[in-house]
Amino acid sequence: MNSTSLDTLDTPAALVDLDRMEANLRRVAEYCRAHGLAWRPHTKTHKTPALAAAQVQAGAAGVTVATLREAEVMATTVDDLLLAYPPVGEAKRQRLRDLLRRDVGLNVGLDSPEALGAVASAAREAGREVGVLIELDVGMRRVGVGTPGEAVALARLAEDTAGVHFRGVMFYPGHIRQLAGEDDPALDRLSGVLESSLAALESAGLPAPVVSGGSTPTLWHSHRIRGMTEIRPGTNIFNDRATEAVGACGWEQCAYSVLATVVSVAVPGQAVVDAGSKALAREELRGEGGGFGALLDRPEVVVRALSEEHGVLDLAHSDWQPRVGDRVRVVPNHVCVSVNLHEALWAVRSGDVVASWEVAGRGRSPYAGRGASDGSVFLQA
Amino acid sequence: MNSTSLDTLDTPAALVDLDRMEANLRRVAEYCRAHGLAWRPHTKTHKTPALAAAQVQAGAAGVTVATLREAEVMATTVDDLLLAYPPVGEAKRQRLRDLLRRDVGLNVGLDSPEALGAVASAAREAGREVGVLIELDVGMRRVGVGTPGEAVALARLAEDTAGVHFRGVMFYPGHIRQLAGEDDPALDRLSGVLESSLAALESAGLPAPVVSGGSTPTLWHSHRIRGMTEIRPGTNIFNDRATEAVGACGWEQCAYSVLATVVSVAVPGQAVVDAGSKALAREELRGEGGGFGALLDRPEVVVRALSEEHGVLDLAHSDWQPRVGDRVRVVPNHVCVSVNLHEALWAVRSGDVVASWEVAGRGRSPYAGRGASDGSVFLQA
Repeated sequence: MNSTSLDTLDTPAALVDLDRMEANLRRVAEYCRAHGLAWRPHTKTHKTPALAAAQVQAGAAGVTVATLREAEVMATTVDDLLLAYPPVGEAKRQRLRDLLRRDVGLNVGLDSPEALGAVASAAREAGREVGVLIELDVGMRRVGVGTPGEAVALARLAEDTAGVHFRGVMFYPGHIRQLAGEDDPALDRLSGVLESSLAALESAGLPAPVVSGGSTPTLWHSHRIRGMTEIRPGTNIFNDRATEAVGACGWEQCAYSVLATVVSVAVPGQAVVDAGSKALAREELRGEGGGFGALLDRPEVVVRALSEEHGVLDLAHSDWQPRVGDRVRVVPNHVCVSVNLHEALWAVRSGDVVASWEVAGRGRSPYAGRGASDGSVFLQA
Repeated sequence: MNSTSLDTLDTPAALVDLDRMEANLRRVAEYCRAHGLAWRPHTKTHKTPALAAAQVQAGAAGVTVATLREAEVMATTVDDLLLAYPPVGEAKRQRLRDLLRRDVGLNVGLDSPEALGAVASAAREAGREVGVLIELDVGMRRVGVGTPGEAVALARLAEDTAGVHFRGVMFYPGHIRQLAGEDDPALDRLSGVLESSLAALESAGLPAPVVSGGSTPTLWHSHRIRGMTEIRPGTNIFNDRATEAVGACGWEQCAYSVLATVVSVAVPGQAVVDAGSKALAREELRGEGGGFGALLDRPEVVVRALSEEHGVLDLAHSDWQPRVGDRVRVVPNHVCVSVNLHEALWAVRSGDVVASWEVAGRGRSPYAGRGASDGSVFLQA
């Protein structure tokens, strides 16, 4: 597309500052090179094949996906995927099989014999073999096997099952939101849990070639997690207000914002914009500043309240006097769920829109072709 | 489409129980007939033209929309719309003008001279006149003029501006979540605020033919709001866990749920399903029960935590022993934002899927035709 002015975009619109995004990619690529870590960014954040391709071009070894939809669209531009989510159920088994029939490298993370069986069956039907990463619970208490013994048992089952082989382990340190500096013991505890599973696997004759972990909040401390070979940060491509709040990026590294229009100043002390929970997503920031987002150019102006189509800007700490029709950029607290609410990302450089991408990986299954219905199924009232 | 078994649907999937939904529509239609109120349901909840048509068939006088996208898709099946949101900005002015060139009745709610000017300009370009409802703040402190004098001034401006005319007032009692019974004074206070504006308009020779209000939490008390002529409940078509929590519906009147699959039982005391914040939406229930949703068939099992693709079910109060692969239906706390996360609704009757509809009104502007870009805009790293 030709470059066009930001002023012509309807609002709310999801904007990506390309200069900032590219700097974010270069920074993480350089960090990973310096520390000998593979970089496998999680594409759940942007769900956009062109951005996955940009990550690979910047040095990513491959990408991570959570859903089969993400896998299907990312496979169009990236040839090395980690499905970091167990494909459970017949519909997913069939989608995985169809995906494996395409020419794409794929490993799968899982924590149960049932998921292992589904992956193996899909792989056999596709006539190939899939690498399995055993998911470990390293303290988040969400998913993942809880003991070294369980990890060994599931790894052995993978080795003994046709269609799959044991490729390593994965974990997600989502319980660590903020580190109190280089001395914070949280990463030592995590490393200890991880090492006990790695040692047990080694002793069982099942050494793990891949040890995949990492998150955006722990990103710049990844080298302190002993034994880890690859990281999967997602948010880092754009960053967001929560990432800034935990110290894992600066405000000037926030590359994503939602362009919004002031639609009402009728109630004193506030301005209402047309970006609500259906554009920003409701993810409240606990602690400092609070609220649901802040203005990119005036971070002292916080989104104090959200309705579906209304964001209420608190003017208490600002001398800004907005008028109906003014346009602002809102940085959401959690970028991944905001992106997921938009059909498209608008790429901005030097104040102009220079590209746009469909957020092709959002949603579940392509609706087209399923056959929409009219109202003929309703009973007469 | 032919009837198919629920078991074949991939998860997460948004389900509508047609029997329950139809009963919900009949109930509100009957209530409105009994109390002489017009029923103009807000389509933000379902965003689905076939369901708007079902509401009109059940007795709705027309429907309410919040976005121009909703207006554009609802205009395909309903000929009487209220745009309950000010169209601010040139892109929206043009979309409104194009909509007005179609054969559809439309009134617009607004609270500023700027929005009034945009509506009038769009109407004049379309060669017709649009009715304006002045939005009043009756206590929510979100949008709406705050005094009877402001209401009169804006109504007079509407009468004096070519392209628009004063058609009445609207308000949203979103600050009233729960009523303490028939004696709760909240509705009397609201009625007092409303009556002072209505009296001022009457005195100024600008009586309001339409007085539009109402919400799902106050739905069954609408007859106590003095002077109101029409109600705009949205959630009521499906209901949700928050509506049940405030006493505005029974659990057996919840017509919407998200079909989900158990993907992990690795961590004791819980089960993890594949419906997270990208399927249910993060709207925490304060107070009783807490959490982010509950199982339709086992309401004692609450969604205790959400990640983007994980919902953590708390098994502490249940003897249910889920296994990987089990399927459940989750009732979200806030149905409107959950529907907005799905491409399609699957209509279920007697355990079979009998219809499906694209959620056509979600999103902002049709992405098709804007021209997706490849990666050529990136600077070389």
